Amino acid sequence: MKKVPHKLYLTEDQMPKKWYNLRADMKEQPDPMLNPATFKPVKAEELYPVFCKKLAHQEMDSTTRYVDIPEEIQDFYKLYRPSPLIRAYHLEKYLDTPAKIYYKFEGNNTSGSHKLNSAIAQAYYAKEQGLTGLTTETGAGQWGTALAEACSFYNLPLTVYMVKVSYEQKPFRKSVMQTFGADIIPSPSPTTEIGKKILSKDPGTSGSLGCAISEAIEKAVTTEGCRYVLGSVLNQVLLHQSIIGLESKTAMEMLDEYPDIVIGCAGGGSNLGGLIAPFMQDKLLGRKNPRIIAVEPASCPSFTRGRYAYDFCDTGKVTPLAKMYTLGSGFIPSANHAGGLRYHGMSPILSKLYHDGYMEAMAVEQTKVFEAAHLFAKQETILPAPESAHAIKGAIDEALKCRKSGEAKTILFGLTGTGYFDMMAYSSYLEGKMNDIIPNDEELERSFEQLPKIPGIQ
Amino acid sequence: MKKVPHKLYLTEDQMPKKWYNLRADMKEQPDPMLNPATFKPVKAEELYPVFCKKLAHQEMDSTTRYVDIPEEIQDFYKLYRPSPLIRAYHLEKYLDTPAKIYYKFEGNNTSGSHKLNSAIAQAYYAKEQGLTGLTTETGAGQWGTALAEACSFYNLPLTVYMVKVSYEQKPFRKSVMQTFGADIIPSPSPTTEIGKKILSKDPGTSGSLGCAISEAIEKAVTTEGCRYVLGSVLNQVLLHQSIIGLESKTAMEMLDEYPDIVIGCAGGGSNLGGLIAPFMQDKLLGRKNPRIIAVEPASCPSFTRGRYAYDFCDTGKVTPLAKMYTLGSGFIPSANHAGGLRYHGMSPILSKLYHDGYMEAMAVEQTKVFEAAHLFAKQETILPAPESAHAIKGAIDEALKCRKSGEAKTILFGLTGTGYFDMMAYSSYLEGKMNDIIPNDEELERSFEQLPKIPGIQ
Repeated sequence: MKKVPHKLYLTEDQMPKKWYNLRADMKEQPDPMLNPATFKPVKAEELYPVFCKKLAHQEMDSTTRYVDIPEEIQDFYKLYRPSPLIRAYHLEKYLDTPAKIYYKFEGNNTSGSHKLNSAIAQAYYAKEQGLTGLTTETGAGQWGTALAEACSFYNLPLTVYMVKVSYEQKPFRKSVMQTFGADIIPSPSPTTEIGKKILSKDPGTSGSLGCAISEAIEKAVTTEGCRYVLGSVLNQVLLHQSIIGLESKTAMEMLDEYPDIVIGCAGGGSNLGGLIAPFMQDKLLGRKNPRIIAVEPASCPSFTRGRYAYDFCDTGKVTPLAKMYTLGSGFIPSANHAGGLRYHGMSPILSKLYHDGYMEAMAVEQTKVFEAAHLFAKQETILPAPESAHAIKGAIDEALKCRKSGEAKTILFGLTGTGYFDMMAYSSYLEGKMNDIIPNDEELERSFEQLPKIPGIQ
Repeated sequence: MKKVPHKLYLTEDQMPKKWYNLRADMKEQPDPMLNPATFKPVKAEELYPVFCKKLAHQEMDSTTRYVDIPEEIQDFYKLYRPSPLIRAYHLEKYLDTPAKIYYKFEGNNTSGSHKLNSAIAQAYYAKEQGLTGLTTETGAGQWGTALAEACSFYNLPLTVYMVKVSYEQKPFRKSVMQTFGADIIPSPSPTTEIGKKILSKDPGTSGSLGCAISEAIEKAVTTEGCRYVLGSVLNQVLLHQSIIGLESKTAMEMLDEYPDIVIGCAGGGSNLGGLIAPFMQDKLLGRKNPRIIAVEPASCPSFTRGRYAYDFCDTGKVTPLAKMYTLGSGFIPSANHAGGLRYHGMSPILSKLYHDGYMEAMAVEQTKVFEAAHLFAKQETILPAPESAHAIKGAIDEALKCRKSGEAKTILFGLTGTGYFDMMAYSSYLEGKMNDIIPNDEELERSFEQLPKIPGIQ
């Protein structure tokens, strides 16, 4: 076996030149998106008012296995990629585990997360189409920051609807986006009809990703030359994020390693879908059989307690219907600090794979997540984002199982980003003021009752 | 010529295993530190009550050219090093310059700066000596964060005196240090005699590095088993930071490049001294003749407007006297946002080299610095720390000269860290509220009058 360094960076030559489209290898496809008026499958053209054309086509394309990464995007990737694959030697030692723990660290860029991988792609295609503006939503602010950077690079005006609780908890996150020229609006806001409606019902709401999405879409479709972009959930996003998994797999091959377990945090699925893509391919094709584990917050448990059903992707019910694990589009999660995971639904691709038994899921409480984050920071010196720390918690749990069983399993997890803008949450944890708010069954049942009724389907 | 990638990472095998001690190649040594009571040169033993022993010896050792990096420190370095050497292709294109711009990026670790290079070394030697606590000061918070990480790794209790203006401007920086278990006290504080004295004279003072140093030293020498550590100015710090320059030089050699100009920001000199070390060696030995430029803030211009004289390293006048460029130990710079550069003095090694004509210096106003930072962030996607942006400003100026002259010079600058905790300053710049406060000549003259009188010397 080759000597394993602490960190492995691919060379720029080794970086992927194509994204991998997981759908091309799925035996059964995710159910199609439906038009909420006709309940008929949505066609790419119907998406043109909302998405830029190339992205609408990527959204629908379930057959092209490998998609060329345009050279300009490859060039941009080289500003901050490849990202390192890191062996967590110090954590392993501290846990006294025979497990080998690797993590793919996506936080070494100014957006502080993996979100830039899709942001630059979406900004590129928007520029190519000659659009004059983009809108989006952001939860924790990672996606918004990434897109602000990408739009700044292409001089594209950007309006970001930022979930109100994050807007208030993360004033400096907002400043970073403004530094890159973006216009930031706390959501729900009075700048849209949807926002006004939500505010009139619940003026004190802390907002949610689902609600910010509604506002951003409304703004895009009512503004000339403007389109909407989304940082998670969508098939196109998982396509762009496949670069995480592809790089990870190449790096592990160079080390003669293959993960027994792949672990990612799960909000809308962007990082998880990207990280697991090539390993899931091996599983789908029967070449390997790694365990694949999604870790989600107990406060917003779409996989573990949601319904697999058609639902709106947003709170305002303006999007097409997607078949996914959902807590109901009206579900507003408690003000959990992992803002990036506060989404009611889940990527349709991942939902289908989970439903078909190709992956597992676990829900964890945020105090346990911060405990894992704190331990990780002390041992590995990287201060993780609370979102990423969900995966850390999952990895530590599996490593501790190995200590009990004596098995030297190889664990790979995705460290999606850094926690520099989450210090209020860290302080609250350190001061013992953090608590875990978990939805009760009645609350979820009420939310499920609002799922759309579709004749002959659900 | 070899193909130049956007980023070059050395492999772990290529990382330096020895630090380089610049003094070993200086034709004339910096003047020795003096005991302020006797005006006699200080001996290593006299430093033992303040510094840990190994570090006191490194401080005095001007002859050992290469110092072995202990394996444990090498292991820790591998948690976040090697740092990348990056070709600023996008910036070059934007500036339309024939110059080739490279930067060594030291921000890819949780401390967000190069400070970790010396912090881990100092914590290691303290642990080795069996010390039970450390004290230090921090300006912008970068050094404090780095040391908090290093002490956390070795379970060493740490007290950090944080310059009050930074403590107030950077609440989240404080939280990061607390997350790593450090005790943070705004300076000047009532926890020390020196602090009380300064507060009684000027209750509204925004503090300074010099003042925080006095407090940290007082705390160390009055606490059993406790010593003081410093993140800049000292010879030992420049020794540890030589890893920046050594890695840079190796990486440039791999690209068949050699810098015509090396540029670093200058506060106390830690990054600058580390970055330039091997290039200055070439210059001292007559092998090469690169221009070496220090960039300092116009609000705290020790090189460009200071005196080359013996002075205290701190405001409270408890340290030995060092011969250096100084604005006077009582000089309290305006609340410039680049907190890490608000120091009245300068590394004695760098002072001597500057005095002997081996390097140049320029002072820049902070609005120009933020203009450069903003431009850099948009082009290169890295949000720089204001300190680091001084070097960016210097590099852009030189690149623009090349555009005029048509010369394709090779420029290397040090990007010491990231600006995530400087968003208040960025916002102030973007809102047009930032101004430049520059000391007038009378103010400096008054400060120089307070320089210590040393019979037969000054």
